[in-house]
Amino acid sequence: MAMESAPPGELIASPSGDFTLRASTAHLHKVVLSTDILNPSNTVLADMLGFDSTLVVTTPSIARLYRNRIEHYLQATVQRQSQILVIDCKEETKNIEHVLKICQAATQAGLRRRSQIVAIGGGVCTDVAALAAALFQRGIQMIKVPTTLIGLIDAGVGTKNAINFCSRKSLLGTFSPPKASIVDLTFLHSLPIRYISCGLAESLKMAIVARPDLFGILEATGPKLLRTRFRDPLEAATAVIRISVESLLTELAMDLFERSSYERKLDFGHTFSPYVEEASGYAIAHGEAVAIDIALSSHLANQLGFLSDETMCRILDLLASLGLPLYSRKIDVSGIWRSLQAVIAHRNGKLNLVVPSAIGSCTFVRELADLRPSMLQRAVEDITSRPLGRGVN
Amino acid sequence: MAMESAPPGELIASPSGDFTLRASTAHLHKVVLSTDILNPSNTVLADMLGFDSTLVVTTPSIARLYRNRIEHYLQATVQRQSQILVIDCKEETKNIEHVLKICQAATQAGLRRRSQIVAIGGGVCTDVAALAAALFQRGIQMIKVPTTLIGLIDAGVGTKNAINFCSRKSLLGTFSPPKASIVDLTFLHSLPIRYISCGLAESLKMAIVARPDLFGILEATGPKLLRTRFRDPLEAATAVIRISVESLLTELAMDLFERSSYERKLDFGHTFSPYVEEASGYAIAHGEAVAIDIALSSHLANQLGFLSDETMCRILDLLASLGLPLYSRKIDVSGIWRSLQAVIAHRNGKLNLVVPSAIGSCTFVRELADLRPSMLQRAVEDITSRPLGRGVN
Repeated sequence: MAMESAPPGELIASPSGDFTLRASTAHLHKVVLSTDILNPSNTVLADMLGFDSTLVVTTPSIARLYRNRIEHYLQATVQRQSQILVIDCKEETKNIEHVLKICQAATQAGLRRRSQIVAIGGGVCTDVAALAAALFQRGIQMIKVPTTLIGLIDAGVGTKNAINFCSRKSLLGTFSPPKASIVDLTFLHSLPIRYISCGLAESLKMAIVARPDLFGILEATGPKLLRTRFRDPLEAATAVIRISVESLLTELAMDLFERSSYERKLDFGHTFSPYVEEASGYAIAHGEAVAIDIALSSHLANQLGFLSDETMCRILDLLASLGLPLYSRKIDVSGIWRSLQAVIAHRNGKLNLVVPSAIGSCTFVRELADLRPSMLQRAVEDITSRPLGRGVN
Repeated sequence: MAMESAPPGELIASPSGDFTLRASTAHLHKVVLSTDILNPSNTVLADMLGFDSTLVVTTPSIARLYRNRIEHYLQATVQRQSQILVIDCKEETKNIEHVLKICQAATQAGLRRRSQIVAIGGGVCTDVAALAAALFQRGIQMIKVPTTLIGLIDAGVGTKNAINFCSRKSLLGTFSPPKASIVDLTFLHSLPIRYISCGLAESLKMAIVARPDLFGILEATGPKLLRTRFRDPLEAATAVIRISVESLLTELAMDLFERSSYERKLDFGHTFSPYVEEASGYAIAHGEAVAIDIALSSHLANQLGFLSDETMCRILDLLASLGLPLYSRKIDVSGIWRSLQAVIAHRNGKLNLVVPSAIGSCTFVRELADLRPSMLQRAVEDITSRPLGRGVN
């Protein structure tokens, strides 16, 4: 864990004879934006590796495309043999078995307390590897190198990790700020278009609740960025990533360990989406589920009088133009409604549905009583009757 | 986790365009000394339970002796049905499977982010439950109620947890200060004598390196405390526990997350002991292995000129009078010597063997080059030829 420092704690003996141990820890998480980081002339990654051994954890697709470059980079820069572990990284394999595989490889590679794990991959890869790093010898250093758009702007720069357990999404995990995240958009050039769309959903989430400037860029250039896999226009590509990362980190900084509040802007698009993913057996990807959630939440916002017709249409049109679904036949209104019970349990008894009130601002629907199944029904009917985009799949 | 507070972090954007997220967390760990805590008139435990649900994790022997009292206590105080999970708690079952069993029970019991796990048992029980609490929903509250002497003065009041993995002792775990530990010596009245001896080894460890007053009490009353299972003399029993807890917490407060140094007084008795436990297939209990380590380390201290003959003899005599072994035929000098390599790897390249220099103070043998196998050989020969105590088993 990127535990920057841990000043001495304080032991207080009470007159009654009890003891209280107070201690604090400071965390430092660097997020470095760079390009072409596997080129040996770029030492951003190499400079972060300590003298101790490194285990690189990556996915089959990244290994196929980049394994030789990763090995060459490490030999050319830190002059060491690297241990590379390739693990299957799907939502179905985001489980304890894969965490333990990494811990086993870390043991075999002789990793010690000052060693590090470098995860090069999508959100599942960085999540599973980060949990392994949090547990191995009670926490070794972790460097995240996200390679998907969703990783670059969300999972790969966040401080949480998680695995699925007991059929519950992300039930087990830790808050473990990594030592660093390295954000390099050149990885997007080899990413399937569908996963660019998924990342754009997370970017759009931040745009709608916090950053009208980002929304404008996505409206103007999003479809082209999607088509060119973030090659063109480059200035917009860089801006989308920079603003998305900055706005995520700004929100995280306010409540890094999710202790102080259950009203989080970052939960926009993440109320209905766990159900959407689960109900589809994960055939609907996370970003797509977020898009469906954004569409539903925006329509509910409109019905509740928070959001104008025009702005709702801008949101739905932009979702569609980014190649994202607005709904799916794999889900239904009664399932969505029932799923809200789990959300309420998770958010300490409150619904706290985040809904947009304009481009760049949001409000919360705090209680389930403020909604009715008929409103959801109307949202679904309206959304599925729209002509644009992939619409319903 | 007992994360007392997490003030807002700070996001710093560098001129180069990178971001640094700084955040800190404050931990608060209460250690309450009480007696007869399962008596409903004692509300120490009840007062710590929030309104949310509780999962009690305990061992087969504690369940056999105390299950009815635990259930009655919770019904009489917090007026709630309690979920009690009994798990096998041996060194061989200190593994991920048992952590996951607890997480599964927590899911079934409907535990949420503000829920708590209460572990009532020995060191393995509190360790395994604490790791489950650290992982479940990224950390829920944990209350440790140790029931063995080693738990009361060491594992149950510490902030670390761990499980064995890949045949390595305590390879995986976290630093997760519990919300509270409740120390109640009445649990010792039902503890097998062998485990009282084991706990006394940890108490003696603290006495030798830091607390001459504790050493004096153990010399004067240790054998009687052992025989009466800490019933008599009660004043000495209370003092042994209080001083042991206080000195452990004092050391922990200086470096709660083991970040600042690899020279830790608390490692006294814990250099050779992992090998002793492993080589015996865990037939030698942890406290017994610590006793053997204390004997060897004290003899080496004497050979190196740090410790007088007289003080070494006081230490060896006290170990024996507390029913502890000084050596075992299950280990040998070459095995001990080889095991130091793993110690050196774990302590960042240094041996850092803690050896006593007097009753109440210690020094460090920092390099392996300061020792020779022949010194270990001589220590073993001398120790095994002593007439006192259980000696060699």
